[in-house]
Amino acid sequence: MANYIAFTAEHAIDYIKEIIKKELITVFADNAELNAYEFGDGNLNLVFRIADQDGNSVILKQALPYARCVGESWPLSLDRARIEAEVLINHGQLCPEHTVTVLHHNADLALTVLEDLGHLQILRGAQINAEQFPKLASHVALYLSYTSFYNSDFYLSAEEKKTKVSQFINPDLCKITEDLFFTDPYIEHERNNFPTELKSHVESIRNNQALKLAAAKLKAKFLSSPQTLLHGDIHSGSIFVDANTTKMIDPEFGFFGPIGFDIGSFMGNLLLNYCAQNGRITELAKRRQYQTHLLTCLQDCYNQFEQHWLRLASSETTDISFASNAFTKDYLHDVLRDAIGYCGAELIRRTIGLAHVADIDGIEDEQARLAVQQQTLVLGEQLMLNATSCTSKDEFYSLLVSLLN
Amino acid sequence: MANYIAFTAEHAIDYIKEIIKKELITVFADNAELNAYEFGDGNLNLVFRIADQDGNSVILKQALPYARCVGESWPLSLDRARIEAEVLINHGQLCPEHTVTVLHHNADLALTVLEDLGHLQILRGAQINAEQFPKLASHVALYLSYTSFYNSDFYLSAEEKKTKVSQFINPDLCKITEDLFFTDPYIEHERNNFPTELKSHVESIRNNQALKLAAAKLKAKFLSSPQTLLHGDIHSGSIFVDANTTKMIDPEFGFFGPIGFDIGSFMGNLLLNYCAQNGRITELAKRRQYQTHLLTCLQDCYNQFEQHWLRLASSETTDISFASNAFTKDYLHDVLRDAIGYCGAELIRRTIGLAHVADIDGIEDEQARLAVQQQTLVLGEQLMLNATSCTSKDEFYSLLVSLLN
Repeated sequence: MANYIAFTAEHAIDYIKEIIKKELITVFADNAELNAYEFGDGNLNLVFRIADQDGNSVILKQALPYARCVGESWPLSLDRARIEAEVLINHGQLCPEHTVTVLHHNADLALTVLEDLGHLQILRGAQINAEQFPKLASHVALYLSYTSFYNSDFYLSAEEKKTKVSQFINPDLCKITEDLFFTDPYIEHERNNFPTELKSHVESIRNNQALKLAAAKLKAKFLSSPQTLLHGDIHSGSIFVDANTTKMIDPEFGFFGPIGFDIGSFMGNLLLNYCAQNGRITELAKRRQYQTHLLTCLQDCYNQFEQHWLRLASSETTDISFASNAFTKDYLHDVLRDAIGYCGAELIRRTIGLAHVADIDGIEDEQARLAVQQQTLVLGEQLMLNATSCTSKDEFYSLLVSLLN
Repeated sequence: MANYIAFTAEHAIDYIKEIIKKELITVFADNAELNAYEFGDGNLNLVFRIADQDGNSVILKQALPYARCVGESWPLSLDRARIEAEVLINHGQLCPEHTVTVLHHNADLALTVLEDLGHLQILRGAQINAEQFPKLASHVALYLSYTSFYNSDFYLSAEEKKTKVSQFINPDLCKITEDLFFTDPYIEHERNNFPTELKSHVESIRNNQALKLAAAKLKAKFLSSPQTLLHGDIHSGSIFVDANTTKMIDPEFGFFGPIGFDIGSFMGNLLLNYCAQNGRITELAKRRQYQTHLLTCLQDCYNQFEQHWLRLASSETTDISFASNAFTKDYLHDVLRDAIGYCGAELIRRTIGLAHVADIDGIEDEQARLAVQQQTLVLGEQLMLNATSCTSKDEFYSLLVSLLN
């Protein structure tokens, strides 16, 4: 990283002009007049929008060599910019419809130039406003099934897979998940973040040996189960949407891990929004209708994820040992159990851990917010505790319905 | 590998003289008069013994850039010499008593200079002659528990572990195991090797869907469960012994894989010898006595392996998420199930796959040999089929006793 400097908007313009000249990017005309501004929070990355006067634009994202949001001194290697770009390139080849396009990457400067998705909304903001996206479930299912299948042992040769596992070793970002997702919520830790009113509930979590065992098993799998190249951070803030479009961004947490992690995290975020609406939408019929939509979205997504997987496995499996319906079903049953567990863990860590969601934290009425937090904790606990005994996805959906009513 | 040349005995002497001069080795005096000869089969590696006139000696092992024994054109990178040396160094730090000592390694020449264990016997030869080694069980238990615990997520930080996983990516050698251990025996393949009389039994294996599912699950775990740094090839030919000594050699198949694989392979080799003795020792009382010894050795080894693990986990676990007896027991229960499965798979692949064991192939009487092969196949099948339902090691031992009687 000898040549690294943190960019200003002027650097960004100069850099884009340089790669136009070298014909590394074709969005802009050779003599385009460019303007640029920084947006985003600048905690981990700098993000610039660079535009010409004809309405063409790109995003330039540059990793910063420090992290301001996760404690004061969390070391984050600039290598995460390479990881993010390479995950996007990998996933973009497998599912271009739902992966933001990488236009250019420079590892020395830890920067990536991306297509501008500014015409879309971030899913989290839209779901806080109870907007509905009828194609979201099938788009996410397509993205997660294709990217996970084609990076798995069903499709890659063992040698290709081992090479990729090595390519995506991502210790700094994985450590954030290992700590914040699986460790902190179950112990006393200064990074945890919850109101005093939840103290006794939090203590009951810390004393729940069965729950701690479930969390430890999920963590062990996160550490040592390189089934596929995960996005690694599929929450509602990593998904751009409109009525017809769904695009995944920000896979800097990408690494080879358990398939259930991404889809479990996605379902967890749907459920966080589901619970949050109990403190947001006051009109009962309207709330029920929206929550039913969310639950249908979750089920449709998981159903289609599994259908794609079964179809891909039956037609595209290259390893003769794995080319049987019995094996695929057994494998997917494990994925389901993992997904339920990770979904539950997401609910708990977003409620009492360091990183919360705006769906809940933005609820103005304190009592309403507390009631939602109590609900997400109970839901998370019950999903984690019952994950391994779920024998089918229908049993999982029934469990969900019984817990949400 | 620009400087690589395959050695002759003269090269070996010159090389040792050179590293004596550079003070990289202290076994020999500066002016020692050395002699050298090649031994071993020369299929994958060259092995030389270099000695002086005072009785000091070392072994020089050099990897060859081709493999003659595994099909005609199995590509094997010289990198396996680095892997082998680095596994020995890693394991030697954790369990020096039972790991052959690396005196010197040269990656460019793919060679390693090792302590000479010529005063010991190879376990396989000794067990073919029904020799007993009362310390074998506890030595192997110590080696496997210490090397597996200290390379696991219980002890290594996630970052250290990810670095080591990368360091020991070993695609060429893993592929041999993936194919010969988990794939070939369950399909029609020219590499398989069994007498015509076993044909119907082999076909029943190929048609046994439950068994094929078990084999596929064991293979999936072998591919994607980097729990610890395995030796990777713990059979009776990789263990040097005498009454008081046990030393592991040849970990060129080393990689991060499931903990149950090494101990399962070791138990499988004890059981191969157990069955072989039915075709070797004609005197019933003598045979029973020796077989009882073998079964005790297997049980003692597994019991002590588990005891060491429980003790190490309770005192040396660095990850607070894993520091509970409940988690360790759950984890070790999975290790047991894996070990039983890999043990069964070793029995099957050594009977009908490419690589056999001299314990059985050396039985002169054809009918006796066939009877032993039938027994190892049935034993292997039953262990694989019942592995995941075993709830304790005692249940495993009972199953074994019922199958062996």
